[in-house]
Amino acid sequence: MFKHIINEKLELRLLEARHAEAVYEVIEMNRGYLSEWFPWVPNTKNAEHTKTFIENELRRFAHNNGVSTGIFYENKYIGNISIHEINWNSKLSSIGYWISSEYQGLGIVTTCCRELLNYAFETLGLNKIEIRARTDNVRSSAIPIRLGFKQEGILRQVDYNNDRYYDHVVYGLLKDEWRGK
Amino acid sequence: MFKHIINEKLELRLLEARHAEAVYEVIEMNRGYLSEWFPWVPNTKNAEHTKTFIENELRRFAHNNGVSTGIFYENKYIGNISIHEINWNSKLSSIGYWISSEYQGLGIVTTCCRELLNYAFETLGLNKIEIRARTDNVRSSAIPIRLGFKQEGILRQVDYNNDRYYDHVVYGLLKDEWRGK
Amino acid sequence: MFKHIINEKLELRLLEARHAEAVYEVIEMNRGYLSEWFPWVPNTKNAEHTKTFIENELRRFAHNNGVSTGIFYENKYIGNISIHEINWNSKLSSIGYWISSEYQGLGIVTTCCRELLNYAFETLGLNKIEIRARTDNVRSSAIPIRLGFKQEGILRQVDYNNDRYYDHVVYGLLKDEWRGK
Amino acid sequence: MFKHIINEKLELRLLEARHAEAVYEVIEMNRGYLSEWFPWVPNTKNAEHTKTFIENELRRFAHNNGVSTGIFYENKYIGNISIHEINWNSKLSSIGYWISSEYQGLGIVTTCCRELLNYAFETLGLNKIEIRARTDNVRSSAIPIRLGFKQEGILRQVDYNNDRYYDHVVYGLLKDEWRGK
Amino acid sequence: MFKHIINEKLELRLLEARHAEAVYEVIEMNRGYLSEWFPWVPNTKNAEHTKTFIENELRRFAHNNGVSTGIFYENKYIGNISIHEINWNSKLSSIGYWISSEYQGLGIVTTCCRELLNYAFETLGLNKIEIRARTDNVRSSAIPIRLGFKQEGILRQVDYNNDRYYDHVVYGLLKDEWRGK
Amino acid sequence: MFKHIINEKLELRLLEARHAEAVYEVIEMNRGYLSEWFPWVPNTKNAEHTKTFIENELRRFAHNNGVSTGIFYENKYIGNISIHEINWNSKLSSIGYWISSEYQGLGIVTTCCRELLNYAFETLGLNKIEIRARTDNVRSSAIPIRLGFKQEGILRQVDYNNDRYYDHVVYGLLKDEWRGK
Repeated sequence: MFKHIINEKLELRLLEARHAEAVYEVIEMNRGYLSEWFPWVPNTKNAEHTKTFIENELRRFAHNNGVSTGIFYENKYIGNISIHEINWNSKLSSIGYWISSEYQGLGIVTTCCRELLNYAFETLGLNKIEIRARTDNVRSSAIPIRLGFKQEGILRQVDYNNDRYYDHVVYGLLKDEWRGK
Repeated sequence: MFKHIINEKLELRLLEARHAEAVYEVIEMNRGYLSEWFPWVPNTKNAEHTKTFIENELRRFAHNNGVSTGIFYENKYIGNISIHEINWNSKLSSIGYWISSEYQGLGIVTTCCRELLNYAFETLGLNKIEIRARTDNVRSSAIPIRLGFKQEGILRQVDYNNDRYYDHVVYGLLKDEWRGK
Repeated sequence: MFKHIINEKLELRLLEARHAEAVYEVIEMNRGYLSEWFPWVPNTKNAEHTKTFIENELRRFAHNNGVSTGIFYENKYIGNISIHEINWNSKLSSIGYWISSEYQGLGIVTTCCRELLNYAFETLGLNKIEIRARTDNVRSSAIPIRLGFKQEGILRQVDYNNDRYYDHVVYGLLKDEWRGK
Repeated sequence: MFKHIINEKLELRLLEARHAEAVYEVIEMNRGYLSEWFPWVPNTKNAEHTKTFIENELRRFAHNNGVSTGIFYENKYIGNISIHEINWNSKLSSIGYWISSEYQGLGIVTTCCRELLNYAFETLGLNKIEIRARTDNVRSSAIPIRLGFKQEGILRQVDYNNDRYYDHVVYGLLKDEWRGK
Repeated sequence: MFKHIINEKLELRLLEARHAEAVYEVIEMNRGYLSEWFPWVPNTKNAEHTKTFIENELRRFAHNNGVSTGIFYENKYIGNISIHEINWNSKLSSIGYWISSEYQGLGIVTTCCRELLNYAFETLGLNKIEIRARTDNVRSSAIPIRLGFKQEGILRQVDYNNDRYYDHVVYGLLKDEWRGK
Repeated sequence: MFKHIINEKLELRLLEARHAEAVYEVIEMNRGYLSEWFPWVPNTKNAEHTKTFIENELRRFAHNNGVSTGIFYENKYIGNISIHEINWNSKLSSIGYWISSEYQGLGIVTTCCRELLNYAFETLGLNKIEIRARTDNVRSSAIPIRLGFKQEGILRQVDYNNDRYYDHVVYGLLKDEWRGK
């Protein structure tokens, strides 16, 4: 029921238990591609698991500790974008996302990210947002770069998936840098 | 961040912890009028209490057990409208509401109610919604009557407030009756 | 061990875990008849489930939130009668019951009800007790009528069982009406 | 509401939250005498504390883990007698009691104990009940002795009260010994 | 990682989850002998169960309520010795132990016990430690006797194992008696 | 009771509730210096708070999720060194430390760190350990540098303390790099 309208085609919706089937279907369709990048994919075995995930994410929102939203394009669920756990002492959090392969390359995630950055900086009053991407994920890195994030480091072997370790580039954006935009 | 837009002036927003101050302020402003009708008013002593209420209501939403939304008029918080706990076996729930006195008489609650009825019947798939009003609350009763609810009974002395008992009229609307509209 | 003696043949006993077998047996014997009226019957699949029910009901009693008692006739368990959750602000609760088919028609439930009404009004100090019955359950409705309850309404489609909805008659009795008796 | 009737004057009642005031009053009246024997007395500072105690004891009963009952003489609360936590593997528990000073010496506790022993052995199916008394508490020791318990040992310094340690005599009674009676 | 070194061969180590396999293996090897004496043996069916046991014991330690340690001889796990739950009001606890059959008769448990007694009396400031042994377990009783414990009683039928009841000898040692050593 | 002996003067001990006083005293003595670097210092107002911290850290250890140890020099508590929460999927954690000012400059933390690295890599089987230090904390950065950690980035404004934000240098060490040493 609750949404954040971005433009006539694109919305972020707060996922509810009843969305579990639709979300799981898109994960299922993108399983090959998603499992290449995310360690949580093999554990997502059915819509019931997705329902539990949605309920946990809503509980996180209820505790004022970040939020997970569904990306809807022309009323169709096509991916997720989230503000992760918030360090309220440092007013610091990070953003993560994935989108169905057929909708990639249209700038959708960048647009959604911009909205969550506004929410994070203006509404929640956070001071810094980080985005992390695997060094071999050029597509994912393009988003923070386009949004003016600065590269702050490369953390080695912090991501284990499909039997090997991957490095993460850390990008950071400060409230002041965003305001300047 | 999350809202359900009704028209250019009116929105239902999912309340977050950060709204507590604004909500409490409106309760404070309407304290005299609200305490006449609702037993929860004397216990609402500060914004911290309102924050706890909001967090509990979000948790209820997270458990797929109804939802509490803030009514915003021209971006200003002016009251609350909620779907109470859901009996999923009978697909039954009820709706409750209150609105700042200065915004009464404009049909705002009726309009909001209509949206929640759509959400309840069409999205959640409920079968029946009840609205209860004190027999001496003509203004409140006008809403279900206007929306086509049928009066189903008068439950005696079910509401204790300000040292006396009050009766409740129960109004009910079935999914089929709503569909017919 | 704990009982409320009504007369030389009839007692209300606080059910303990060790009663689970005996209770389940009577449910099993009356399964056909009970499942016609109560949605909880299909989920009651074994004595272990009944044990959990008894423990939950005792916990409710421990929290001063109503009580579930076993009806014993000549030392034999024959049914249940309960005070449901209590709304302490309105000093309001309801009573529910069922009895093994072979003991129906003897006025046993009416007698037990009278005892629980005394407990509710005199001991707990409640102000009102409701009894709800399906409109097609003449036998069940006879009890509140006999005890002087007033019919307060017919709530439509609030009870879903065996693939259809049923209406409930609500009967209410006030403390003052009981005192007058 | 629930009681175990022993004779025309004496009953064991399952304590409910509403008894807290009456129980606390008797503790208050006997504070000097009770604090001589029991380390829990100084912490019992008001009826609210007693209410919490009663709720915890009911929860223990709900978990099939012993029971705490109020001794009522001519409908007046005069003390407590309990079956403590049960070791279900060994079918072993113990009994504890105290009674208002003015009712001591009438054999009331012995009579109540006999009832709880029947409940423990016959109803719960326990195999052994122990009673422990401070070596300087002749009055308390008289009860298990009168009931046929055997002295099984003197545990040194297991009870700390009023700045010194006391020894406990352990008395034990087996189911078979009770049956023989 | 954490240990209490007793001598060049013998250590008490705080068990961590990662020790579960090694502990289970020794239990498995001694299953026949252990199940003769301890009722918990049949329930210990795999290393996962042992891991849960270790985690529970660590939680007990975290709550300042006794500790369970692994006996390591020449860096090999060979048994357990524990301080059970502590009665902080009476500053009273008990010690329990078992050791792999091939290491019995070397005085290892006596030596470990001495260390735990020092910890209990000197570090935790307890006032009394009890050790209980089945009357038919001469080997186990030898330990408290050797350490100067006094026999305080024989509790009848407090231990149920392999379809029969066993008696326990209770041995006790006071802080003052230990200090004198 | 449990310790990891490093050399004749230096030990890491698993902190227990009873250490709270000693730990708090050292925090109190170093309050000026510690509050310059750590946001948790102002909240540490008494030994009771330190006791809660120790119990939480022990619970973390019980859940196999890192460990907090006290640094003891000549049997005197002088600081803390911890393995923080563990990401078991990536086998990744970080180490943090502080030491009483009078013991700085003696290489004590470096020595302790080396032990925890062994524990992390060899015993727990982790793959990477990070150490983070404020960019203005030269003394703290010297430790990972001396131990062969590689600088992986500078995360901007991730640490809020005394009304301003600070940057963190992230140092990382892989299991393979440690093994090579």
